[in-house]
Amino acid sequence: MIFRKAEKTDLPEIVQMLADDPLGAMREDLQHPEKYEHAFDVISKDANQELIVVESEDGEVIGTFHLTFIQYLTHQGSIRVQVESVRVREGMRGQKIGEKMFQWIFDRAKERGAHLVQLTSDKTRADAIRFYQKIGFVDSHEGFKRPI
Amino acid sequence: MIFRKAEKTDLPEIVQMLADDPLGAMREDLQHPEKYEHAFDVISKDANQELIVVESEDGEVIGTFHLTFIQYLTHQGSIRVQVESVRVREGMRGQKIGEKMFQWIFDRAKERGAHLVQLTSDKTRADAIRFYQKIGFVDSHEGFKRPI
Repeated sequence: MIFRKAEKTDLPEIVQMLADDPLGAMREDLQHPEKYEHAFDVISKDANQELIVVESEDGEVIGTFHLTFIQYLTHQGSIRVQVESVRVREGMRGQKIGEKMFQWIFDRAKERGAHLVQLTSDKTRADAIRFYQKIGFVDSHEGFKRPI
Repeated sequence: MIFRKAEKTDLPEIVQMLADDPLGAMREDLQHPEKYEHAFDVISKDANQELIVVESEDGEVIGTFHLTFIQYLTHQGSIRVQVESVRVREGMRGQKIGEKMFQWIFDRAKERGAHLVQLTSDKTRADAIRFYQKIGFVDSHEGFKRPI
């Protein structure tokens, strides 16, 4: 498996993975790639953001995730990594790809001096919640959202 | 009440508020201001971060919060506001200062084109959880943390 920064040409495959999911299907829009291209440009220019794709040995994109490194005052001025948009391609699940993705994320967090990795998972995603618990995450917090 | 970006001279009061709390007391370090000064410099240079202080009419700092504007691919390339380090000064609680702070945050989110405000709250903070529910947040997500 190869981990690399996403390029603009990866976008159709990334967006397909984001949409290929019961929650994602309701909120993504495959008919308007320009919205994702604009977002990609903003993400790419920000040194605190890393949109990553995972390639199989034969060069296929099989996973993606998005990291944001956030400097906080709390915990004595620490950096946290926030993980978002984690997806493994349909048909590739059950092969420990998620475990390898998070091992990469923990290593990357260490490299960039972060002390904590954080994410939220919709409470209806029972499999995801079990997965995160298994790899050492603690669900110590309520994850609140409010639309604007 | 006046809302303004924090200046470096506000740091002692901000850190005091962060530490003046059962959880904060365990993790902050008032003896090493240089750690917070370094973090402050990083935050100040980042256009996606806003560390805000709230002043009373007589110029006292009575509250603080930290916003991070994050561009995502999901939700058709949307921006979210993440809220962290929310504190109202001890002795000033019960005066609807928190409500006014979040009204300001929702307005600011709209100004910057965000579609969602998100935060996590430690499950032991029962009062905070009731407060967030009361002002329209939904605890739809598990908030996972993993130390590095």
